[in-house]
Amino acid sequence: MKITVMKFGGTSVADPEKIQRAAERAISERRKGYAVVVVVSAPGEMTDELMSLAERITTKPDERELDQLVTTGEQVGISLFAMACKARGSDAVSLTGPQAGIDAVGAPGCAQIRRIRTRSVLKHLKAGRIVVVAGFQGLAPNGDTSTLGRGGSDLTAVALASALKTGRCEIFSDVKGVYTADPRIVHDARKLKRISFEEMLELAGAGAQVMQARSMEVAERFGVELHVRSAFHNPTGTWIVAQEKIMLEKAFVSSLALDKSEVRLTVVGVPDQPGVAAAVLSALAADGIPVDMIIQSAPSQAGVNDMSFMTPKAFAVRAKKALEAAAAKLRAERVDLNDQVAKVSAVGTGFRHSPKIAATMFDVLAKAKINIHMISASDLRVSCVVDLKDGESALRAIHKAYGLSKGRR
Amino acid sequence: MKITVMKFGGTSVADPEKIQRAAERAISERRKGYAVVVVVSAPGEMTDELMSLAERITTKPDERELDQLVTTGEQVGISLFAMACKARGSDAVSLTGPQAGIDAVGAPGCAQIRRIRTRSVLKHLKAGRIVVVAGFQGLAPNGDTSTLGRGGSDLTAVALASALKTGRCEIFSDVKGVYTADPRIVHDARKLKRISFEEMLELAGAGAQVMQARSMEVAERFGVELHVRSAFHNPTGTWIVAQEKIMLEKAFVSSLALDKSEVRLTVVGVPDQPGVAAAVLSALAADGIPVDMIIQSAPSQAGVNDMSFMTPKAFAVRAKKALEAAAAKLRAERVDLNDQVAKVSAVGTGFRHSPKIAATMFDVLAKAKINIHMISASDLRVSCVVDLKDGESALRAIHKAYGLSKGRR
Repeated sequence: MKITVMKFGGTSVADPEKIQRAAERAISERRKGYAVVVVVSAPGEMTDELMSLAERITTKPDERELDQLVTTGEQVGISLFAMACKARGSDAVSLTGPQAGIDAVGAPGCAQIRRIRTRSVLKHLKAGRIVVVAGFQGLAPNGDTSTLGRGGSDLTAVALASALKTGRCEIFSDVKGVYTADPRIVHDARKLKRISFEEMLELAGAGAQVMQARSMEVAERFGVELHVRSAFHNPTGTWIVAQEKIMLEKAFVSSLALDKSEVRLTVVGVPDQPGVAAAVLSALAADGIPVDMIIQSAPSQAGVNDMSFMTPKAFAVRAKKALEAAAAKLRAERVDLNDQVAKVSAVGTGFRHSPKIAATMFDVLAKAKINIHMISASDLRVSCVVDLKDGESALRAIHKAYGLSKGRR
Repeated sequence: MKITVMKFGGTSVADPEKIQRAAERAISERRKGYAVVVVVSAPGEMTDELMSLAERITTKPDERELDQLVTTGEQVGISLFAMACKARGSDAVSLTGPQAGIDAVGAPGCAQIRRIRTRSVLKHLKAGRIVVVAGFQGLAPNGDTSTLGRGGSDLTAVALASALKTGRCEIFSDVKGVYTADPRIVHDARKLKRISFEEMLELAGAGAQVMQARSMEVAERFGVELHVRSAFHNPTGTWIVAQEKIMLEKAFVSSLALDKSEVRLTVVGVPDQPGVAAAVLSALAADGIPVDMIIQSAPSQAGVNDMSFMTPKAFAVRAKKALEAAAAKLRAERVDLNDQVAKVSAVGTGFRHSPKIAATMFDVLAKAKINIHMISASDLRVSCVVDLKDGESALRAIHKAYGLSKGRR
C-alpha cells in the first residue's frame, strides 16, 4: 500500500467551495492508486473567530478550555472535507486527533506529539477510504484533546508521514512554493525546484514565512521530504529535502528574504568591560524577548561602545524597557529605538568559503547608494539592515546581482 | 453530596454575554452548597450555521460526518461556559459527551443513550468543580461521537439527573414556564406552578412547544421532576411532575394550546365499506406522514362518507399525493386541502367524567359565532378545528370561559 499524506492549510479550506476543490485533489490522488491521508486545518478565520469568542468571556481564558474550544475548528474542517469526498463517490472518514491515535503530552496549547498509534488510520486506508485527520491536536493522557501550538497542522502531517513511513508529505497552501525572493516585490523571482531544510530554517529566521520551523525540523529529523505547493494551481511546487540530496556547489545563494517586521534597538555608550554584553543580553532573555543580529561596535577612545539588536516589533516596547533598566545599572548613556528599518538577507550554502557572496551584497547596496546600518553573516546567511524605505529596492538589486532569476535549482 | 443538574438551551447561551449570565446562575447554585452539573446546548444559531455549511458541500451529507460536524456546536458552548465559570473564580471543567461517559447506540443523527458511566463526572464534582457537559451527544461503540436527535440536550440533562439520582432537573430556556395559554395571545394567561407529564405530552401533541416529548417521557419513566424556567429571569417556573403528585380533582383544565402549523385534508365521497378507513390511513402511514384528529363523517344516504385529518404543513403536499392515490383505488370522489385552519385545544385531566368541559368549549365558540370544522376529545384533551382567522379569538374566549387566569395550580 503506497500512502500519500496531503496537508491542506486554513486558506485552502476557507469555505465549502474551496473544500470541494481540495477534496477533488485528494480523490485524484486516490484514483492514481495511492492510499490517501489528508490533514486539514481549521477553515479560514475560524480559529481567530473562536478565540475572539473566548476573549469576550475573559481576558485570561483557561488553557485547557481554550483547547476544548479551538479544536472544534479542525473538526469542522475534517467533517466537511470527508462529506465532500463521499458526495463525489469516494469513500472517506474524518478522524479527530484522538480518533486518529495521535497521543500528545505537555501543557494544553503547546502539547507535543508523543507517538501515533496508526491502527485506526491503517484500518480505514485498507478499507479504501480517504482518511481525513484533524491537524493541530492530539489526545492528552487525561483524555483531553490538546492543541500542538502554532504550525501544528504541518506537524501533524509530518508526524503522520513519518509514522506511516511515506518518506514524503505534500503541503498545500496559498503559496506556490519557495521563491528566490518574494515575487510581489521581485517580479522575475523564480520558484525553486528544491531547497534544503537548513536553508528553509535560515529563511524562516530571516523573516520568510513559508512553513513553521518546528515542522521542518521534525521532517528533517525523521527523513520526510516536504512538497510545498499551491492548493489552487496544479504545477509542482518546491521540494524541501536533506542537504545531502542537493548537489553540492562551492557557494550558492538560493533565496532572498526581506523582513520589515523588526525594529533596531541600540544601547549607546556601554562601558567597555568584560561581562557587559552578557548583562545586556540576559536582561532581554529574562523577559523572553527574541533577538537577531547582535552587533557590538569597536570601543571608542573614551572606552565605551554601542550594542545593537534586531527584535520583532511586537516586543519593541518591552525590549526597550528591559534595556533601559540594564543601561541604568551599567551606566550606559541611553537606549535608541529605530522602527524605520528593514532586514534583507541572502540564504544559501557554503558562504564561509566564499566571501564574494557577502562582498557582492555590500557592493550592490553601495552602488545603489543604500546605507547599511548593520551586517551579520554566517555560513548559511548574510543579512544587512537598511532603511525601511530602501528595503524593496535593495531586494531587487541583490536579486539581480546574484542572477537568481536564471538559477539551476 | 447534593447534586443539581441545570440545562441551558441554545438561546440561553446564544452569545458570550448570555453565557456569562448563565455561568453566574450555576455559580450561585454551587455557592448554596450544591454540586453542580450543567448541560449546555450549541450557542444560538450555531447548529443551523454548521448545517448550512454542510448543505453548501452536498445536498445529502453523510450522517456520520454530519454528527462529527454539528457536535462541535455544543463543544464550543461547554468550553466557553467553563471559561466563564473559571474567570469568575469558580473551578469548572467542560466535558464532551464521550468525556462525560455518555455511551450511545444507534444510527448517527438519532442515537440513543445506552448508559452513563458517571465516574468522570463524579470525580470532578468531588473536586469541587462545576461540570459542564455537552448536550445532544454520546460515544458510539466504534469511537464516533453521535448525536441524539432533536431535543437531545434536554435528554442528556434528564439522563444525567437519573444516573446521578438527583430526582430533579432544572431546564433553563427563553420560556418562563408553562402557561394556561400562550401569553402573547391571551394577556391574562397565568404561569402554572405544576403540571403533570401526561398533560405536557398532550400539550406537545396539541402544538405547544415547551419541551421535546422524548425527554419528558424519559424523565417520567426515571422519576426526574423537571423545572422549566427562564434563563433571564429569577422567579421559579413550572414543575413538571408525576400525575399522582398533583392533587386529584374531578376535572381540571390546566392549559390551552393553539396550533396554526397544520392543514386539514379531506377525502370526499369514500364508499362506506369495511376496511376503507384502514386503507386510507395505511397510505399515509406508509409514507411516514404524521396524522392528528382522524374524523369520519356518518355515511350519507348514497352510502359514502368523508374522512378528514390534520397533518403538519410540511407534509401537506406529500399527504395529498398519497391520499389521491388511495382515493383513486377506493373510487372516492376527490381530496380537499384546507390550509386556512387552526386547532385550539384544552388539556387537563378527568375530561371523560366531565362532559361539561367539552360542552363549555363548544358553547363559547358558538356564542362567538366561530364555526367548528372538526372535534376530537379524549380523557386529557378536547380539540376543535376552526378557521385560521378565528384561532386567536377562540383561544381568548375559551381561556376566559374556563376561568384559567385565576386557577389554583
